Amino acid sequence: MNEDLVRRMIEVSERRGEFVLSSGTTSSVYFDKFLFLTRPDLLRDVAKEIASLIPAEVDHLASPEGAAMLLVAAVSLACGLPASVVRKQAKEYGTKLQVEGYAPAGARVALLEDVVTTGNQVLRAAKVLEAQGVIVEIIVLALDRGGADTLRDAGYKVASVASSRPAS
Amino acid sequence: MNEDLVRRMIEVSERRGEFVLSSGTTSSVYFDKFLFLTRPDLLRDVAKEIASLIPAEVDHLASPEGAAMLLVAAVSLACGLPASVVRKQAKEYGTKLQVEGYAPAGARVALLEDVVTTGNQVLRAAKVLEAQGVIVEIIVLALDRGGADTLRDAGYKVASVASSRPAS
Repeated sequence: MNEDLVRRMIEVSERRGEFVLSSGTTSSVYFDKFLFLTRPDLLRDVAKEIASLIPAEVDHLASPEGAAMLLVAAVSLACGLPASVVRKQAKEYGTKLQVEGYAPAGARVALLEDVVTTGNQVLRAAKVLEAQGVIVEIIVLALDRGGADTLRDAGYKVASVASSRPAS
Repeated sequence: MNEDLVRRMIEVSERRGEFVLSSGTTSSVYFDKFLFLTRPDLLRDVAKEIASLIPAEVDHLASPEGAAMLLVAAVSLACGLPASVVRKQAKEYGTKLQVEGYAPAGARVALLEDVVTTGNQVLRAAKVLEAQGVIVEIIVLALDRGGADTLRDAGYKVASVASSRPAS
């Protein structure tokens, strides 16, 4: 783990204040992942680190829709692999696709996610990819906040740039 | 306009089939913007071209949420400017932000969009940025499919990598 990079990601992304979390509980600190994903110096360094964690047999990238699209674009540029984006729901018109971009059947994919706490969103994306014949070789996280265990329990190989369990 | 780049973007992105568009009409050709945004060679070249259209006074980038996030990440890496993402609606928990990332009051922003047909989505994003004191210096489009006129009529400076009016 690149300790300096991890420190920079966390320093930049912690907001102080009073925050109501999705669970309904309140917190005086909030990890705002957009703050490291929208700084080009950090985005580049995190993408480079993620690219180094991708096994040679991987030929495509994917991410769930949302903030991780910033990451998948940067990693695609860093390693030259085509990418795809997994929507929460299929589009209702036009292509009617749930997986946008490049994810042909038989593709060996590294599924990327910025920050994982429960792992549920990335798990859903993995299932959508598999349903169309894609092989999820590995799930690579910028920051594991606990969800990597759930993903491993579900049978996936998981790597992460950084680990940091949320303050309780 | 870089004719070779425009040709590559359009060739890669046109799908043939029968498509029901959001307007309810059907079309035998569909321009799938994800197909150029998820190919790293094209994403890099389009981002470089967009970066060259950004005036020197611009100090931040922005994009609406969605496919354009792939583009804003690539342009942020290409030109070194921090970025922001404008949500359709403010988040309901946590930071409760509608604009994620870096868009402080007084920032001079280039607002990026992949493909514009009506211009309505990017216009809404511009208004959201302005409501928090950001100055929208220019709107830069990867592909203008007609919406640039609407944006200019609304008073914005607009530049685009390519122009292509949809087949009727």
